[in-house]
Amino acid sequence: MGTSQDALLGDIQRTIDLKTKPVGSLGRVEALAFQIAALQGTTTPQMNDCRLTIFAGDHGMATAGVSAYPQAVTRQMVLNFLDGGAAANVFADTFGVGVQVVDAGVAGAPIENAKLVSRRVAAGTKNAITEPAMSAAQYDDALATGREIGANETTDAVCYGEMGIGNTSSASLLCHKILGLSLTPLIGRGTGVDDKTLAHKTQLLEQAASRTPDQLTANTALKEYGGFEITMMVGAMLGAASAGRLIIVDGFIATAAAVAALQLNNDINGNFVFGHRSNEIGHAIVLKAIDAEPLLDLDLRLGEGTGALLAWPIIKAAAAMLNDMATFDSADVSGPA
Amino acid sequence: MGTSQDALLGDIQRTIDLKTKPVGSLGRVEALAFQIAALQGTTTPQMNDCRLTIFAGDHGMATAGVSAYPQAVTRQMVLNFLDGGAAANVFADTFGVGVQVVDAGVAGAPIENAKLVSRRVAAGTKNAITEPAMSAAQYDDALATGREIGANETTDAVCYGEMGIGNTSSASLLCHKILGLSLTPLIGRGTGVDDKTLAHKTQLLEQAASRTPDQLTANTALKEYGGFEITMMVGAMLGAASAGRLIIVDGFIATAAAVAALQLNNDINGNFVFGHRSNEIGHAIVLKAIDAEPLLDLDLRLGEGTGALLAWPIIKAAAAMLNDMATFDSADVSGPA
Repeated sequence: MGTSQDALLGDIQRTIDLKTKPVGSLGRVEALAFQIAALQGTTTPQMNDCRLTIFAGDHGMATAGVSAYPQAVTRQMVLNFLDGGAAANVFADTFGVGVQVVDAGVAGAPIENAKLVSRRVAAGTKNAITEPAMSAAQYDDALATGREIGANETTDAVCYGEMGIGNTSSASLLCHKILGLSLTPLIGRGTGVDDKTLAHKTQLLEQAASRTPDQLTANTALKEYGGFEITMMVGAMLGAASAGRLIIVDGFIATAAAVAALQLNNDINGNFVFGHRSNEIGHAIVLKAIDAEPLLDLDLRLGEGTGALLAWPIIKAAAAMLNDMATFDSADVSGPA
Repeated sequence: MGTSQDALLGDIQRTIDLKTKPVGSLGRVEALAFQIAALQGTTTPQMNDCRLTIFAGDHGMATAGVSAYPQAVTRQMVLNFLDGGAAANVFADTFGVGVQVVDAGVAGAPIENAKLVSRRVAAGTKNAITEPAMSAAQYDDALATGREIGANETTDAVCYGEMGIGNTSSASLLCHKILGLSLTPLIGRGTGVDDKTLAHKTQLLEQAASRTPDQLTANTALKEYGGFEITMMVGAMLGAASAGRLIIVDGFIATAAAVAALQLNNDINGNFVFGHRSNEIGHAIVLKAIDAEPLLDLDLRLGEGTGALLAWPIIKAAAAMLNDMATFDSADVSGPA
């Protein structure tokens, strides 16, 4: 196994190096091509299609004043996704990427819409400032549902996006508890809170963090701090990885999900490509902590999968390089003198 | 004029801010959308298509030992471009971008190929280490030909790539002479020269630089240091800008061309998007000197337009955002509380 794997990796590198370009001159694109080929176990990997799944869920914390936007926006944005009007829809359409929207636990009555994948665990999590966001049964439900969604993916690559007012708060707490990073530097402005609200958000999250031991497993951290959409995304990442898909990670919240997924299964590192470095202040810290170098740095802080989508064309091009570029021999091009 | 232009710019910013996302949350994509809309003078700009033109030319300097590759590679790569086997072809195909190849002055006999745009000025420049790369008549010919090619562009955006063994040497000398930057930090490994060749290259370029005054106009610098493909690209940039096209600038050599074009016409700044920051050491220095922040940083150092091509999908997405995203009103989404 080790030997044949080594032989494959050697073949992949040789295939890249024989293409008509100075060795290494395509930089990160070559590294991506290598990763994709190694993941699929072939020197001619396929990266033809991609799908975005947006997980939406509400957070009890949102009602405590951690966000600039009212909780109702989660639900309104779900309808916007279903209508095709959000940034994620527009980017996905531009690149020919399909979109599915999953209700993992939006507050209020169930949303009636034939296009919606309704897998709601509950009408939002509890307020994690003062109590666990979800029960053990709810956690198991969210994770298993996510696994099933991920395992049923059929595209070569998948993007996972999220929508949930208050979920940068969950992400900060998750990264703090799972990775053992200091909490305060991980707390940012999310959708754009002002200085006063940021101070209030920080105080609330410190209170939330003080409820539990300094470091938690991914399972416990997700139960304590939520949300349903993040937990379902963790499950989807695990399921998609088990099915051999390449997972394009979006911003701060999706990275928190990836951190949890990697703690639950540390063999799936090769399935992840980090799409971009967000403007949300904690993201760069977490990426550095897990030694992840994202492809893009465009000052985004929207979520929804938008940053992952913008990375998809580069990933597609990396695989095309392996499949379609001529070699020095085939094109009769001389090497270095 | 000033007032109606101000009104337009205000309209564009308002249009961006009313889209269903926190204000500014799409970062550089919003800035791009603004630039594209301002360039086209409308809040509904079109970014539907793009074409890559690769200018190829040879450099007398190449025979003096400034490159790791033999001069014949320029010609071989032109055939590879025409055959569709180079990295630029593969990226262009992946993104639905057309490619044309222009012989601006490849060494040897003219290349016979129906797909080639043959506008050769001469069979390579003279050796700029010891004498001017081209005559005044050749310079005028190359620049005018480029202008004509640029003025006849029909796509919303254009990428300009280049092929010419030895042309990082020209680019270093051009940026040194036009911008007044120190020469040595601008001299890099190009296609990948070793330490010994880099020392030799540095010595040769210092000799070349010492032939002329410290600072030169773009016209004089291009005549002195070439090459035909760079000069033709400068002309194409001027022509494409006059036709209102968005120009996606590639790496170090294309940026040297943009530096010259901007010196020849400083009103066309808004036509340029810098696609990426190259691994070629001088590129970051030059980008900083002209206050240009590229979209991508992927450690590329290939040229051909590859880095510009990888930026194209992001540019397309930026325009789509303006045209296709819902507004808070149209989607009935609440703003900040």
